[in-house]
Amino acid sequence: MVEIERKFLVTSNAFIKEAVKHNRIVQGYLSSVPERTVRVRIKGASGYVTIKGKSTSSGMTRMEWEKEISIEEAEQLLTLCEKGMIDKTRYEVIVGVHVFEVDVFSGENQGLVVAEIELLREDETFERPDWLGKEVTTDERYYNSYLSKNPFSSWKN
Amino acid sequence: MVEIERKFLVTSNAFIKEAVKHNRIVQGYLSSVPERTVRVRIKGASGYVTIKGKSTSSGMTRMEWEKEISIEEAEQLLTLCEKGMIDKTRYEVIVGVHVFEVDVFSGENQGLVVAEIELLREDETFERPDWLGKEVTTDERYYNSYLSKNPFSSWKN
Repeated sequence: MVEIERKFLVTSNAFIKEAVKHNRIVQGYLSSVPERTVRVRIKGASGYVTIKGKSTSSGMTRMEWEKEISIEEAEQLLTLCEKGMIDKTRYEVIVGVHVFEVDVFSGENQGLVVAEIELLREDETFERPDWLGKEVTTDERYYNSYLSKNPFSSWKN
Repeated sequence: MVEIERKFLVTSNAFIKEAVKHNRIVQGYLSSVPERTVRVRIKGASGYVTIKGKSTSSGMTRMEWEKEISIEEAEQLLTLCEKGMIDKTRYEVIVGVHVFEVDVFSGENQGLVVAEIELLREDETFERPDWLGKEVTTDERYYNSYLSKNPFSSWKN
């Protein structure tokens, strides 16, 4: 029920040819406050309800609870969600002994590509592929719950 | 996935001797906005996550989705909830062919007793026991999600 994750920007499309699979993901939020996000997701042929708590000070560790539900249930729950759906394609890329989940966003978040790696310990080392860019683990703007209300296309850098 | 319910105040304790069972319920909210409430509940030996949408204009009909979870999961999720836990004892009372769920609130909502009946149709008739008082179906102050933030003891009538 605790998830340790690090998140990185992605600097090229080289990961695509290394991907072992990909799925479209559509998700919305019943709650997008960082202390208690409640997400409804459709990924491939499955639905999920996921509840996450706030990150610890490292930004890496977060309480997470998830239940698989039917597509039909997920579709009904998506109708209740806040405005701002996230639509993205997730590529799974095996690098060494780890799996990177690389999310290529569509719609209002088009142009954003983010890679996540799940770890067993915060100090766990991992192999860094060439396409891995700057770490953004502690930057809450890259939370999907934030992106749903403040899409990447609206950012002023 | 749609729930039709009517809610009433309770005018005496006569329902207690008619109750077929009772359970303590402790619950909190991950989201308490009426458009999308997300509730975590412990009732007896079971846990539940329940998501509800906004009521229709009649106030009786509301989308509802619920999953049973373990007590351990519910206890962990309760730690993420907004301030304002609801603590109550629910009595189940059979009246004619229907079941009334009568909630006797504790803590900051002490003094409040509310009966709910679940129906199959909005125009379904039912037997009204002597202890059934004023209908409050459309009064959102009696939503548990409202009571969690504005407990009965703080009401100024």
